[in-house]
Amino acid sequence: MSEFGLIEHIARLFADADHQGWEAIGDDCTVLPIGGDEALAITTDMLVEGVHFLRDATSARELGRKALAVNLSDVAAMGLPAVATLLSVALPKDAGEEWAKEFIAGYHSLSKEQGIALVGGDTTASEDKIVINVVAIGRGPLSNVKRRSAARVGDAIYVGGRLGASAIGLKDILSQKYDTPYAEQHRLPVAQCAEGAWMGARKEVHAMMDLSDGLASDLCHILRASQCAAEIIVGQIPAVDGDVESAVCGGEDYKLLFTVESDMVEDFEHDFEAQFGYRPYRIGRIIESVQPEIIWLNKGERITPQWRGFTHF
Amino acid sequence: MSEFGLIEHIARLFADADHQGWEAIGDDCTVLPIGGDEALAITTDMLVEGVHFLRDATSARELGRKALAVNLSDVAAMGLPAVATLLSVALPKDAGEEWAKEFIAGYHSLSKEQGIALVGGDTTASEDKIVINVVAIGRGPLSNVKRRSAARVGDAIYVGGRLGASAIGLKDILSQKYDTPYAEQHRLPVAQCAEGAWMGARKEVHAMMDLSDGLASDLCHILRASQCAAEIIVGQIPAVDGDVESAVCGGEDYKLLFTVESDMVEDFEHDFEAQFGYRPYRIGRIIESVQPEIIWLNKGERITPQWRGFTHF
Repeated sequence: MSEFGLIEHIARLFADADHQGWEAIGDDCTVLPIGGDEALAITTDMLVEGVHFLRDATSARELGRKALAVNLSDVAAMGLPAVATLLSVALPKDAGEEWAKEFIAGYHSLSKEQGIALVGGDTTASEDKIVINVVAIGRGPLSNVKRRSAARVGDAIYVGGRLGASAIGLKDILSQKYDTPYAEQHRLPVAQCAEGAWMGARKEVHAMMDLSDGLASDLCHILRASQCAAEIIVGQIPAVDGDVESAVCGGEDYKLLFTVESDMVEDFEHDFEAQFGYRPYRIGRIIESVQPEIIWLNKGERITPQWRGFTHF
Repeated sequence: MSEFGLIEHIARLFADADHQGWEAIGDDCTVLPIGGDEALAITTDMLVEGVHFLRDATSARELGRKALAVNLSDVAAMGLPAVATLLSVALPKDAGEEWAKEFIAGYHSLSKEQGIALVGGDTTASEDKIVINVVAIGRGPLSNVKRRSAARVGDAIYVGGRLGASAIGLKDILSQKYDTPYAEQHRLPVAQCAEGAWMGARKEVHAMMDLSDGLASDLCHILRASQCAAEIIVGQIPAVDGDVESAVCGGEDYKLLFTVESDMVEDFEHDFEAQFGYRPYRIGRIIESVQPEIIWLNKGERITPQWRGFTHF
């Protein structure tokens, strides 16, 4: 059973349950309206040694920041500011006090920078592998919440930054080159927290999510949820080093992927740049289709590359 | 660094952070007031194969129920009903589709019995060990929330059920006796969800928590938080098979431990029995002390056994 197969099995099983006011599974976070125009958004992510990180290649302090950053990215993708987290850590005997303190120091440094409270967690032993689970909670106006299902035909499609650095960095790390700039971007991804919360308040921003498994895979989530297709102009993908395959198929870039009302793109880009000092990258548009597919255009011609996103199973 | 040493280190590091409205770490759940007299209570627990369970000794379906039950117990300990959970699962290749479906079937069956929604999660791979992380969320009146710090001098101390079955069952399992009644209680602990939520509304119930690490360890959390001591009458501890050491030191019983205003105990016990068909066990009382210690009394005499609770490190 693939990762997505298991998720779908779970979703079907629980489909008839009373959702107790929570929105059903399918976005980067689950959303709970808590009265007035206020909502909480909650996400959780598990990092397993040997699958998501190698102890030799990532310092404990870097991992502390990364474990938090990837969850903050999910909250940012909902258009809300993160306010609190819960942290579970399972530690084998050979990752002792020093490792734990360094990990927590990294986690704390990013929490402090972002003004985020640590409000709970669990610490336990593990036989041999380190396992981290983070829960991040956002809080803000319910009307600011951005969903994968909100893309509309005609919307411009954007990514919030250059893509592929993390995948290239992972290749560097796997060939023992730990000190390249890309290896550092893989070990220390930066979540677009401020951008996400700012876009929450922008009505012209329709669908949003974060890129964790690669554009080729993640964009399909928006297309399926919004029942549409996308045209992507390959030459406009902001691929690091011109490596389009890494940009499209590589995981863990943690840039935001979002769609914007087509007749608002000029104002949007202007205001975004005024706020953050750079422009997001417009890479295509949402088109009408019964098939939720990505149409890749190269110099105006459709191409059919075998680009697949990253999955853990 | 011990388990509690690490938790204290984390708490100190984050002590000066803005708690964003959340109550600080120290109870079974963290509590967020969300307006009016309403609050959320959130808890998280990680279960690691080889540390918390053995795949040979616990079926996937049982583990699905247990992983949920231990978190529901933490919510019950706050005096609130659980409403939703998030589930993260890391699966090695040798725990495939069949294992995953059985696990989810168990998790779903208890969710359905308790009317609890599954609102999010994460599925990922693991190299060799299964790891489960559950987040449980309770919701109810803020004024019903029970805290470890609320015990008062003179309070009667109660436990919600018989103790030690899980520890005896674990010994059975470790000596390959899987089918004993105690082994089943270890594999399928029952959280006192209804009792916890009912006691939330009872003003005479002061402090409450659940027994996960054993009375000798867990009661000290209430004593430290409430700045008092306890006298426990050893002969009144409801020890399964008369095995007081397992009852006091054994983990994973998941019965509630709570204190009740002394002049309300008759009414309380009567109403509790009318509601649930059994009486909770009164085992001692809270006394004034600068030292948060447990005074064990055997036939009126103080005894000083070397009873320690269970820790994972």
